[in-house]
Amino acid sequence: MPRDQRYLLAISGGRDSVAMLHAIWHAGYHKLVLCHLNHGLRGDESDDDAHLVRQLAEAFDLPFELGHTDVPARMKEKKESMELAARRSRHTFFAKCSNIHNCSRVLLAHHADDQAETILHNLLRGSAGLSGMPFSNQLQIPPAPGAPEQPLQLLRPLLHIRRSEINLYLDHHKLNYREDSSNREAITTRNRLRLKAIPMLNDIMDRDIAVSILRAHEISNAQQQAIHAILNEQNLFDPQGRIFLPKLRQLPEALQLSAIHQYLKNKKVPDLSQDVIARCHSLINDPNTAKVNLPGGYHFQRKEKRLFVTPSQPSH
Amino acid sequence: MPRDQRYLLAISGGRDSVAMLHAIWHAGYHKLVLCHLNHGLRGDESDDDAHLVRQLAEAFDLPFELGHTDVPARMKEKKESMELAARRSRHTFFAKCSNIHNCSRVLLAHHADDQAETILHNLLRGSAGLSGMPFSNQLQIPPAPGAPEQPLQLLRPLLHIRRSEINLYLDHHKLNYREDSSNREAITTRNRLRLKAIPMLNDIMDRDIAVSILRAHEISNAQQQAIHAILNEQNLFDPQGRIFLPKLRQLPEALQLSAIHQYLKNKKVPDLSQDVIARCHSLINDPNTAKVNLPGGYHFQRKEKRLFVTPSQPSH
Repeated sequence: MPRDQRYLLAISGGRDSVAMLHAIWHAGYHKLVLCHLNHGLRGDESDDDAHLVRQLAEAFDLPFELGHTDVPARMKEKKESMELAARRSRHTFFAKCSNIHNCSRVLLAHHADDQAETILHNLLRGSAGLSGMPFSNQLQIPPAPGAPEQPLQLLRPLLHIRRSEINLYLDHHKLNYREDSSNREAITTRNRLRLKAIPMLNDIMDRDIAVSILRAHEISNAQQQAIHAILNEQNLFDPQGRIFLPKLRQLPEALQLSAIHQYLKNKKVPDLSQDVIARCHSLINDPNTAKVNLPGGYHFQRKEKRLFVTPSQPSH
Repeated sequence: MPRDQRYLLAISGGRDSVAMLHAIWHAGYHKLVLCHLNHGLRGDESDDDAHLVRQLAEAFDLPFELGHTDVPARMKEKKESMELAARRSRHTFFAKCSNIHNCSRVLLAHHADDQAETILHNLLRGSAGLSGMPFSNQLQIPPAPGAPEQPLQLLRPLLHIRRSEINLYLDHHKLNYREDSSNREAITTRNRLRLKAIPMLNDIMDRDIAVSILRAHEISNAQQQAIHAILNEQNLFDPQGRIFLPKLRQLPEALQLSAIHQYLKNKKVPDLSQDVIARCHSLINDPNTAKVNLPGGYHFQRKEKRLFVTPSQPSH
């Protein structure tokens, strides 16, 4: 990450984001904007969080953006889970900060233990293979009226740092942070995994299972990259970007599945499970089926030796 | 599996192996030898298990082999864990039965829930990726004196059958089996995963996590097979089995890493991480380094356009 660029730094005031601010600043990143969103979930505690972040902004002489949202209201209105409503609210807030400061890069404080949890969570809910958070990813957000459409770039500089290392860093530098009491409540799936399941698994296995999970994920990631590299050499697509079936048929079955998965991902089809991909794959050899329904109202079709996605029709 | 061949059927007398005997026999496999090993772990209960298996052998009119071993004595003598001592005792017993009946095929009653446990166990203890039990694998066992050296072939016909389906099958056919009380004790790692961790994870995730784990494993397996298939087409090796560097250099980097990983795995180098593989990979382009230390005392070397492993030196 170039040091002379500006970065939005997402900061809750908790351990991880306070450590990130401190570490990043001392590593020579000085063009930072502190972006703090009050989620409307924790009453007075939230005001104290915002107060700490404002103090940090003054101490580091950095611009400060404070946002407010009402997650419970959004959950009700959009019928979203708390986790989803909170995440979408943050994204909207980042987009707003991005417009104000003409800066599309957002630093997030996810660390290696968050990553291990994410990988385990994705595995157990049936995502394809061992998938986690990337160091960097693009996030397309509907722009504010009149603003140019520009994706946000989410960056996770702490992704290889363990929680224990962050705690040592905070202690060593005697840094103030706020404890988010909701992190200690084993209510959400993520919190129950972190507070109940992972400690039990560490105990049963008599080891730090995050190390095992992270290592397995790295190896799996490298394999996926190898497969992508191979697929990119195959010229699977026609000039319209549709999969050319005779080419696809020449690949081993595992690569056919990977090719379909990658294609659907690129087309932004949501909620891809192995089930969905297997049903799409059946179009390769089943002469009686030419169309498969996909999540999000998409369809996967076979026509004139091509396989392709047709987007959802706007509802009337 | 051809029906006219002979098979040794490993049978404890518990749910899974009794169901397997019944199902396999009714599927037309009649040349079976029932092989039951008393592990010396459960006193009188063991005699009752052997009694049930003998009755089954009589009912199905099949040959019956009864073996005895003293697992606690073996644990003490060879300093093995209970699980390892029990497994090795079984393998020795199978080898003996194999000689007596001139039959190298052994049917094991591992089912899909055993598989999900194995995959989770391997992931959490740091095996590479998502690895489980194969439907079929070869097992090299030191032969009895005078007997020819012949690998055993272990076969797992129930590997895609869920535990719940086996229970329904037993109920439906009103089959007698023995409950192994030690399966209900949360002492061994495997039993604690089965009895404590997996139910907790099912509860937290509000789903049957075995389905997710098995699906992820299938995809990961297919990807590994695809990579192996592609690497095998590349003629990467010289007649001595060393990696030929000019060939390796022609591959995309991700595939170079996979090739090195597969090579090291075949050479039985332990504790392979991405870090180890990346250090080995650096020999491709770094003219100043010609040798990398590997876990287990192995080395990875570059010499005369070849890359190869040199084994650890025996200690004196």
